[in-house]
Amino acid sequence: MKKVAIIMGSDSDLPVVEKTAFMLDELKIPYEMHVYSAHRTPEQVRSFALSAKDNGFGVIIAAAGMSAALGGSLAASTTLPVIGIPIGGKLSGMDSLLSTVMMPSGIPVAAVAVDGAKNAAILAAEILAVYDDDIADRLTAMREHDRAAVLSKDEKISSEYSRA
Amino acid sequence: MKKVAIIMGSDSDLPVVEKTAFMLDELKIPYEMHVYSAHRTPEQVRSFALSAKDNGFGVIIAAAGMSAALGGSLAASTTLPVIGIPIGGKLSGMDSLLSTVMMPSGIPVAAVAVDGAKNAAILAAEILAVYDDDIADRLTAMREHDRAAVLSKDEKISSEYSRA
Amino acid sequence: MKKVAIIMGSDSDLPVVEKTAFMLDELKIPYEMHVYSAHRTPEQVRSFALSAKDNGFGVIIAAAGMSAALGGSLAASTTLPVIGIPIGGKLSGMDSLLSTVMMPSGIPVAAVAVDGAKNAAILAAEILAVYDDDIADRLTAMREHDRAAVLSKDEKISSEYSRA
Amino acid sequence: MKKVAIIMGSDSDLPVVEKTAFMLDELKIPYEMHVYSAHRTPEQVRSFALSAKDNGFGVIIAAAGMSAALGGSLAASTTLPVIGIPIGGKLSGMDSLLSTVMMPSGIPVAAVAVDGAKNAAILAAEILAVYDDDIADRLTAMREHDRAAVLSKDEKISSEYSRA
Amino acid sequence: MKKVAIIMGSDSDLPVVEKTAFMLDELKIPYEMHVYSAHRTPEQVRSFALSAKDNGFGVIIAAAGMSAALGGSLAASTTLPVIGIPIGGKLSGMDSLLSTVMMPSGIPVAAVAVDGAKNAAILAAEILAVYDDDIADRLTAMREHDRAAVLSKDEKISSEYSRA
Amino acid sequence: MKKVAIIMGSDSDLPVVEKTAFMLDELKIPYEMHVYSAHRTPEQVRSFALSAKDNGFGVIIAAAGMSAALGGSLAASTTLPVIGIPIGGKLSGMDSLLSTVMMPSGIPVAAVAVDGAKNAAILAAEILAVYDDDIADRLTAMREHDRAAVLSKDEKISSEYSRA
Amino acid sequence: MKKVAIIMGSDSDLPVVEKTAFMLDELKIPYEMHVYSAHRTPEQVRSFALSAKDNGFGVIIAAAGMSAALGGSLAASTTLPVIGIPIGGKLSGMDSLLSTVMMPSGIPVAAVAVDGAKNAAILAAEILAVYDDDIADRLTAMREHDRAAVLSKDEKISSEYSRA
Amino acid sequence: MKKVAIIMGSDSDLPVVEKTAFMLDELKIPYEMHVYSAHRTPEQVRSFALSAKDNGFGVIIAAAGMSAALGGSLAASTTLPVIGIPIGGKLSGMDSLLSTVMMPSGIPVAAVAVDGAKNAAILAAEILAVYDDDIADRLTAMREHDRAAVLSKDEKISSEYSRA
Repeated sequence: MKKVAIIMGSDSDLPVVEKTAFMLDELKIPYEMHVYSAHRTPEQVRSFALSAKDNGFGVIIAAAGMSAALGGSLAASTTLPVIGIPIGGKLSGMDSLLSTVMMPSGIPVAAVAVDGAKNAAILAAEILAVYDDDIADRLTAMREHDRAAVLSKDEKISSEYSRA
Repeated sequence: MKKVAIIMGSDSDLPVVEKTAFMLDELKIPYEMHVYSAHRTPEQVRSFALSAKDNGFGVIIAAAGMSAALGGSLAASTTLPVIGIPIGGKLSGMDSLLSTVMMPSGIPVAAVAVDGAKNAAILAAEILAVYDDDIADRLTAMREHDRAAVLSKDEKISSEYSRA
Repeated sequence: MKKVAIIMGSDSDLPVVEKTAFMLDELKIPYEMHVYSAHRTPEQVRSFALSAKDNGFGVIIAAAGMSAALGGSLAASTTLPVIGIPIGGKLSGMDSLLSTVMMPSGIPVAAVAVDGAKNAAILAAEILAVYDDDIADRLTAMREHDRAAVLSKDEKISSEYSRA
Repeated sequence: MKKVAIIMGSDSDLPVVEKTAFMLDELKIPYEMHVYSAHRTPEQVRSFALSAKDNGFGVIIAAAGMSAALGGSLAASTTLPVIGIPIGGKLSGMDSLLSTVMMPSGIPVAAVAVDGAKNAAILAAEILAVYDDDIADRLTAMREHDRAAVLSKDEKISSEYSRA
Repeated sequence: MKKVAIIMGSDSDLPVVEKTAFMLDELKIPYEMHVYSAHRTPEQVRSFALSAKDNGFGVIIAAAGMSAALGGSLAASTTLPVIGIPIGGKLSGMDSLLSTVMMPSGIPVAAVAVDGAKNAAILAAEILAVYDDDIADRLTAMREHDRAAVLSKDEKISSEYSRA
Repeated sequence: MKKVAIIMGSDSDLPVVEKTAFMLDELKIPYEMHVYSAHRTPEQVRSFALSAKDNGFGVIIAAAGMSAALGGSLAASTTLPVIGIPIGGKLSGMDSLLSTVMMPSGIPVAAVAVDGAKNAAILAAEILAVYDDDIADRLTAMREHDRAAVLSKDEKISSEYSRA
Repeated sequence: MKKVAIIMGSDSDLPVVEKTAFMLDELKIPYEMHVYSAHRTPEQVRSFALSAKDNGFGVIIAAAGMSAALGGSLAASTTLPVIGIPIGGKLSGMDSLLSTVMMPSGIPVAAVAVDGAKNAAILAAEILAVYDDDIADRLTAMREHDRAAVLSKDEKISSEYSRA
Repeated sequence: MKKVAIIMGSDSDLPVVEKTAFMLDELKIPYEMHVYSAHRTPEQVRSFALSAKDNGFGVIIAAAGMSAALGGSLAASTTLPVIGIPIGGKLSGMDSLLSTVMMPSGIPVAAVAVDGAKNAAILAAEILAVYDDDIADRLTAMREHDRAAVLSKDEKISSEYSRA
């Protein structure tokens, strides 16, 4: 099975990025987690991206804050799909969101929400599931579970709070 | 081969979305293009998404402006990866960008840049290329071509404009 | 009497949305409260909206954060007026505000302020009061009460703080 | 039948506000159109709002740009529902949008999109339709018509643009 | 001597607005403080503004948050200069800032910074000082005092922190 | 009579600032217009401000774009009230607006709307009118004239556009 | 003399970046101009930066739009000062400005204004002038010339537009 | 060796600006730290800037919040490179960022990130290092150290968190 790479630009992003790992665990998708900075370790970023496909990765997830160049730097050196998680900060993540999503023509990054670590994992799983029915089934089951959870909360809240 | 679905929320988005089609043509990826509105034709959106996987689609691209609910609406009814193109408008696309990218946990949409129609096609191709080496090769060739184009422009501009 | 539906996209919105219920209580307007997610339970959203008018509802209030598609999704399947409460979050509610208010032509959502739960209830009451003089009287009384409260605060503050 | 009031803050808003009138014409809802400025003619705003209910109005639509106080000023003196259309300008309508929608507790304004003149009319019709089945039927027919228009565009575009 | 009016839209603004009062105290300028809401007590706002000049006021300061219509409402009914203090809130004061400053032609409001209560008092004093040399002298003395305070801090910090 | 100083940071601001002059002409208030840049001619800015009061000025109007330091620079060297006109540009005037209005404690600038040249003149007139009844009368007359103009437009538009 | 490198991310930036070249011409500073894209030609960016100091460059200017990673990518591989010019686009340059300026600790980029091509050249000259009195003299002369130009415009405008 | 000047607009900026000093200490670059306000002590700002070059300074760093005019005011009176640190505040630093970076043609300020105090020091060092190989060597060593720190964190996190 293809692995997912989770790259964070700084170890300070770990509390957010952990949620990506937890979700991939739940979906039984193998992953490697790395700290590589587009600005402090550009060679590692580049060499990781260049060999990622050959090393068995199917998707790369990049989490970075501020001027979040990590996703774009990885995408520049691979044709694997790269998912970008903009990490929030002093400007509420508007800086990292725009840096992540406003990629120029030719090199897309698939942006998820600010601090959207869990969704990055799900999106990676959806990508792998295009040709992997087991993952697709697990995603469907998770959707069903989420749906049931909402309905159960609805039952509780609607009966407790409604007033005829 | 898996097809790509290109759904636009309004036919007024066609001039932008055409670029998605042109790029998929270049990458020799089959696609269907549709006009379905999350707000005006919600059933079509839902029934398309529910059957998309069975109908041979591998990726869905959703282009919408303003309160761009289309990507999220499609994503809500499929586990296929959904790519969202925020279409610019009165607020320069900040409304459609935030509506597209800020998805709640469980249902990701892969956002590209405002009016990033070409990149949506490339991202779709990258997703399909995870398990399709032909597409991967075409993407690599396109990258190489883009790279050569930049270098050739560099040659021209650097020789014409530099001053010792 | 027509009922008001209060739909929240997630039970995490309850602390805000409770204020809608409290205000409807004060105005003696019956309501049902539900947790339905545009993205996690799209069928419930749709079937609720389709039957809302027949089920005795006169107004629907939708509270959602981030890419707040709930109001628009409900509005897409009913001609009842839909009021949207943008719930604040990482981007201070700018994402949910724009997602709620920037609806495309044909399907309006009546947006109130970020976290404007109390005003959503009052707006719903004003809508029902167009043809219901009892509610109109209660609204007028509440306005009068609010006015008196401001004047009483003015009296206290103006006498305590003014300096000749 | 209750009338709709369309108040614009300046006659320069007319090209936008005309679309409100056209849509009400289509929906066969009577209306009065006025130019009253919250800042230049505050008495007219106030006296209009105070007597609007008695004068047969059911909904008030207020269109204003920049620091758009008109909707709030009208709402302050009536319990009729007030719909605010933020008119775009130098700041793309962000100023008028925030001025219109961010109303304090007690006095809601129902904001629609920047320059959302057509939707303001539809929202007014939805409000009147709560107790008026004829208008509800016309709204349903219009929705059906819009839906058919999208499907017809879909047919044309999907057959012309899709590539197997 | 002309008095300054300090009007706040809600008593919740008092902690900010107190600083206006303290500064006017220091500058020995008489003032009246009031709680009048543009939306909850529009008559009081209007009648206060209409009679302000005759009642001995020279400047009006209006402090309000969210859709801050108070400054504009007061300015609409007087030719006295009106200073607006945008009070910060859920949107960091961007809503109240734009509502305060983006006034249409004919009715200016003199906006100061978000929560700029102290500067509102100083600006009011500068206005009164145009024809009152005593206030001008006090302002000059205060400037001199502020200047000396900066220089004294500079002395301390420059000697403690500089490194040759 | 006290004069008004109109200072623009660049002669490219003249098309906007001319409206300040026209309005002061109408209000029969003498003025001097200057081009002084906070960044290119800081001495002129400073020496003008230091002597402005002695030279018969009562109010200073400063118009500048981008990082609009002109108003603050003038205000730093005078206790005369300084009105700032943020001139719009590449960022729609958000840069000049924030630079103009967000002044630190001690040195206020009275900001008007982006490109609000006419209102700057009116605000200056209101300031001078605090102790000058002739100007106050002219302002009142202008208000009355503006009010009549709105009512006349209302008459025309309400009769032409209303539909019973 | 040290050379300046002017790198643009795309040849579409040339109309802006030409102004950098013109200004360096005026200041008699040699430069090389290149088109290197952080995303399409990452190796060229990296190898240029790695050898820039040895190749006689003293400053690097990077011009890029959207998710402007160019400045940061260059800065990551050199200790030469890197100046970033954010190029404006669909989001008025807010995306490129934030991408350019919000660099993480360790790798600064010196941002100038959106499309601030001329100032990038002047900043580069100021950097070289720290140890080069000839450039310093030319900068001083240019300042003097700019100052004189403002004063001459002031003379013309103040005499033509002022009204006693 | 040339010194660095660190000027802060208010002593409340000290907790941020201290990091500039610590970094310069590490890089063994001498500096003077001052509190000078563009608005409260404009003469000191000007006289410091005018004599900075003669007093042995090579770079000036200016830290200021809100309408951050300090960098521009210093830059107006020297041809030394001026680095601006926008200090965050009520508007998250968007006001100080735009005030710092959006300088008009002729007078650049080199902006770093909001609260980017450490990077301001590094940028200053890079500027001095253009003609000082010792500083260049220290910068290179620090880069190498940062790089090693990232790699060591990567080793720890990748081994602890990856799941095959």
